Amino acid sequence: MQTSLGFVAPGYEGVLALFESFLAEDSRYSAQLAAYRNGVQVVRLTGGPDMAPDTLTGAYSCSKGVAALVIALLVQDGVLDLDRAMAHYWPEFAVHGKERLLVREALSHQAGLLGVEGGFALDEFTTSGAAARLAAAAPAWEPGRQFGYHALTIGILMEELCRRTTGEALQDIYERRIRKPQAVDFFLGLPDCQEDRYRDVLYEADPAEAWLDPLSLDGLNSNAPVSTIMELPNIRSVRAAGMSAAAGVGSAEGLARLYAAATTGIGGAGPFLSGGTITAMTREQVWGLDRSSGLDNAFAVVFMKPHPSRNFGSHRAFGHEGANAALGFADPSYGLGFGYIPRRAEEGRTPGRAHRLAAEVRRSAAGLS
Amino acid sequence: MQTSLGFVAPGYEGVLALFESFLAEDSRYSAQLAAYRNGVQVVRLTGGPDMAPDTLTGAYSCSKGVAALVIALLVQDGVLDLDRAMAHYWPEFAVHGKERLLVREALSHQAGLLGVEGGFALDEFTTSGAAARLAAAAPAWEPGRQFGYHALTIGILMEELCRRTTGEALQDIYERRIRKPQAVDFFLGLPDCQEDRYRDVLYEADPAEAWLDPLSLDGLNSNAPVSTIMELPNIRSVRAAGMSAAAGVGSAEGLARLYAAATTGIGGAGPFLSGGTITAMTREQVWGLDRSSGLDNAFAVVFMKPHPSRNFGSHRAFGHEGANAALGFADPSYGLGFGYIPRRAEEGRTPGRAHRLAAEVRRSAAGLS
Amino acid sequence: MQTSLGFVAPGYEGVLALFESFLAEDSRYSAQLAAYRNGVQVVRLTGGPDMAPDTLTGAYSCSKGVAALVIALLVQDGVLDLDRAMAHYWPEFAVHGKERLLVREALSHQAGLLGVEGGFALDEFTTSGAAARLAAAAPAWEPGRQFGYHALTIGILMEELCRRTTGEALQDIYERRIRKPQAVDFFLGLPDCQEDRYRDVLYEADPAEAWLDPLSLDGLNSNAPVSTIMELPNIRSVRAAGMSAAAGVGSAEGLARLYAAATTGIGGAGPFLSGGTITAMTREQVWGLDRSSGLDNAFAVVFMKPHPSRNFGSHRAFGHEGANAALGFADPSYGLGFGYIPRRAEEGRTPGRAHRLAAEVRRSAAGLS
Repeated sequence: MQTSLGFVAPGYEGVLALFESFLAEDSRYSAQLAAYRNGVQVVRLTGGPDMAPDTLTGAYSCSKGVAALVIALLVQDGVLDLDRAMAHYWPEFAVHGKERLLVREALSHQAGLLGVEGGFALDEFTTSGAAARLAAAAPAWEPGRQFGYHALTIGILMEELCRRTTGEALQDIYERRIRKPQAVDFFLGLPDCQEDRYRDVLYEADPAEAWLDPLSLDGLNSNAPVSTIMELPNIRSVRAAGMSAAAGVGSAEGLARLYAAATTGIGGAGPFLSGGTITAMTREQVWGLDRSSGLDNAFAVVFMKPHPSRNFGSHRAFGHEGANAALGFADPSYGLGFGYIPRRAEEGRTPGRAHRLAAEVRRSAAGLS
Repeated sequence: MQTSLGFVAPGYEGVLALFESFLAEDSRYSAQLAAYRNGVQVVRLTGGPDMAPDTLTGAYSCSKGVAALVIALLVQDGVLDLDRAMAHYWPEFAVHGKERLLVREALSHQAGLLGVEGGFALDEFTTSGAAARLAAAAPAWEPGRQFGYHALTIGILMEELCRRTTGEALQDIYERRIRKPQAVDFFLGLPDCQEDRYRDVLYEADPAEAWLDPLSLDGLNSNAPVSTIMELPNIRSVRAAGMSAAAGVGSAEGLARLYAAATTGIGGAGPFLSGGTITAMTREQVWGLDRSSGLDNAFAVVFMKPHPSRNFGSHRAFGHEGANAALGFADPSYGLGFGYIPRRAEEGRTPGRAHRLAAEVRRSAAGLS
Repeated sequence: MQTSLGFVAPGYEGVLALFESFLAEDSRYSAQLAAYRNGVQVVRLTGGPDMAPDTLTGAYSCSKGVAALVIALLVQDGVLDLDRAMAHYWPEFAVHGKERLLVREALSHQAGLLGVEGGFALDEFTTSGAAARLAAAAPAWEPGRQFGYHALTIGILMEELCRRTTGEALQDIYERRIRKPQAVDFFLGLPDCQEDRYRDVLYEADPAEAWLDPLSLDGLNSNAPVSTIMELPNIRSVRAAGMSAAAGVGSAEGLARLYAAATTGIGGAGPFLSGGTITAMTREQVWGLDRSSGLDNAFAVVFMKPHPSRNFGSHRAFGHEGANAALGFADPSYGLGFGYIPRRAEEGRTPGRAHRLAAEVRRSAAGLS
């Protein structure tokens, strides 16, 4: 008895069974799952209450991986060099000891620019004004010496690098060069005409949450005028602006197709990233205890890399998870693009269901090769 | 019904309520709490059995923060340069690969000099003899490559740097330049005339404690001829000598006033440290897994910095906790000096009550600004 | 009532009592324990079902410590320099950014060569063919920047360095220069004539084990065509080849005698390693979160060093544990050689019984000195 909608290709029956088991365990569970292999869709499943195959919802920091594919295009074009100093492209950045920080370091969470005192306004995140405030800030640690997850500001860094090197907004480059030509159902800036497809991310506010000091590192790191970062994509103006750190919205199909288009190409077309670009962008830059979270983490340029606590793919895999336990990644070892978005934010540190589904998709792919 | 003695300024009622709740929860609980904001005392509370407002008791490694304020004065005076090699001031230090270790590195627990084989005698810690033995020792790791908490020997390093640069004992500089002029009720070396105010720290000896190998890193790190480091301030000769690593005794009021005097000044007087000195001393030097404890830790020059497991203040805060879960710190973001000393050592890795009280004080201050 | 066989020297009665308590707690428990002090055997105990004093069984990664003693001989001979690049001895190694990696770095798990895609055949591990495949591989991280336990491939690296510098197999050097002259009952390559002494390591296969992606770092790290690494020494051809990473077999007496022969000498003879060689080989190279396991670890050149989670000895101790919770080490602070091998693999991350026995042996030794 299949209670989900969609299909799996032959050999991926285990993925269907696992997804169905999640639906059976929890009547409130809703999610979308999609995977491409070698450019062909092999999994597309939707299930649970109030979730349709074409529903769009928030994917939080999965957006960072999406935006990083734009950065990858600039690297591939030769307009952005990861080994240059940030200040080469952005002279105002060269204050408070940030003079020599490289692009590859800043984009792997080594800048120490978690936020600004006073926080950013909601409509400020995607502006050059936010970038100017951030560039003027003193880093929380000696730049390049530690790393710590920049939950919101890494988007500001990526977006300003786009403006400085191309004069165009990251979101516009994404729309023009990736989303439209590749027909990707994932948006950095949701247009009005797609609004009726959006469904709020469901989450439970932590009832007994302690006061978060806005001037602590944790407070700086979540410095938006909202009660919780979970609210961000649910605010129409925020998802319309499409801040690349956290406000991308889309479907699991969109995430999977995007990573497939980047690395294998879709349906016979070539991938939009070369092997050299992929290598440059996905080489691990940092590993260890994250100064922001205190937990272990591993990052390439923007992208998360698999590690013992976040074991989503092969040693070649790269992608990003989101705060609701969504996950998007490419795994070049298996020719995979993978997307998973739950409607209700899952609990726990790492996206447990996403990791289990990702393992089952890889196991299925391995069995077919 | 207030069961504590003392007062809170308007706007700090939440601090009183929290402190009272601790007293209500545990009839054996005794503690002092104090805070200054912008040079004015805003909290002074005492409660629980056998604890008076003027009781002095041990604050263990809070003493390190106190002693570090003396080091800060030497840096401010220009007689000690954090970027010089230790051996510049202390030639005998230049053996066993310690030749190039900088003062800033040695004072952020990177020296690898956790102790000496055979341990130190109780009356040896504050002497140049101890310093000579330590300087002659081989480091436990390549100096400057790792960091690990030097529970007792960081005091020896600080004290010898004072002798070498000024010819005076750290404790004497503290008494002459800080404690007396600022009227601070915290002592590095308790004089006889104050002895009647001292009350022993209460603690429960671990009954099933395993053998501690005196030649293990852990054993070297606690190399005093006592059954447990908890006993140190309770020994009259030890608190009279006032070893700067662990034997400072005082009141919470003293700790709070000290950090306020250093960073905001008291009652209209200027702070005794300049902004530049504070920046130099409180910039984070190390973060990660502490080689001594195996746990995450973050240190500036001597001072502890807030991090996810020890989240006591804003990103500008600096201070030190003690083994009994005492805590003293300054938080320049809020103009705060904070002190907390329990009579009975609290269990657990971090000072849970101190952190909750510190958050409530900051929340109150934030609400008033 | 002693239920174990063997003896303890006067002063080591606590060791006997502890070993007996393990036997009393668990009727299925079998193990051997041995210790030498200053070249004289002070502990030799055997107990539990189907375990005789002369039984040989697998000791897994304890083999790495055994093989490292061969590396130490080459360093002592001057034929291998830890500060040279790997590529100096092994030119084919100089690809994919591994050109400048030092021997000391590669042998402290910093190479990032956890395995090869496709895995190694069982009879391939001890061959130059395996070494050639490994040398040609791209590292999993920037060599020298991270460390992560190389569960199987560190043996390939050690073995090829022997071939390149001496033309002889590591196993042959061990047999000729160490095992035979020192009469050590531990084999890297079990000869047929000793086969009747071998007893399989007993272990329980993890029933609900998740799929291990062979192309994940974890999968690469265990890339042998067996269902679990636990099976390796139980396969006759594997223990006959004696892969130095994991297939050494022997008795606890053998391990203890080996470390004693290396560091104190046995029965009045000099140690086969000089103090300088021991210092060079056992200085800690890396500490922190292991990229392979995500857990804290500390390594010298090949040897494990004691640290808070693996607290087996004094700050001078060095050795290696095995996956069955076996342990072999030397502790020069106490003049000890120590060996422990259980018949049934123990659960848990670290060898709990071995650590308790090691502490009791050191406590006894400390009481006698």
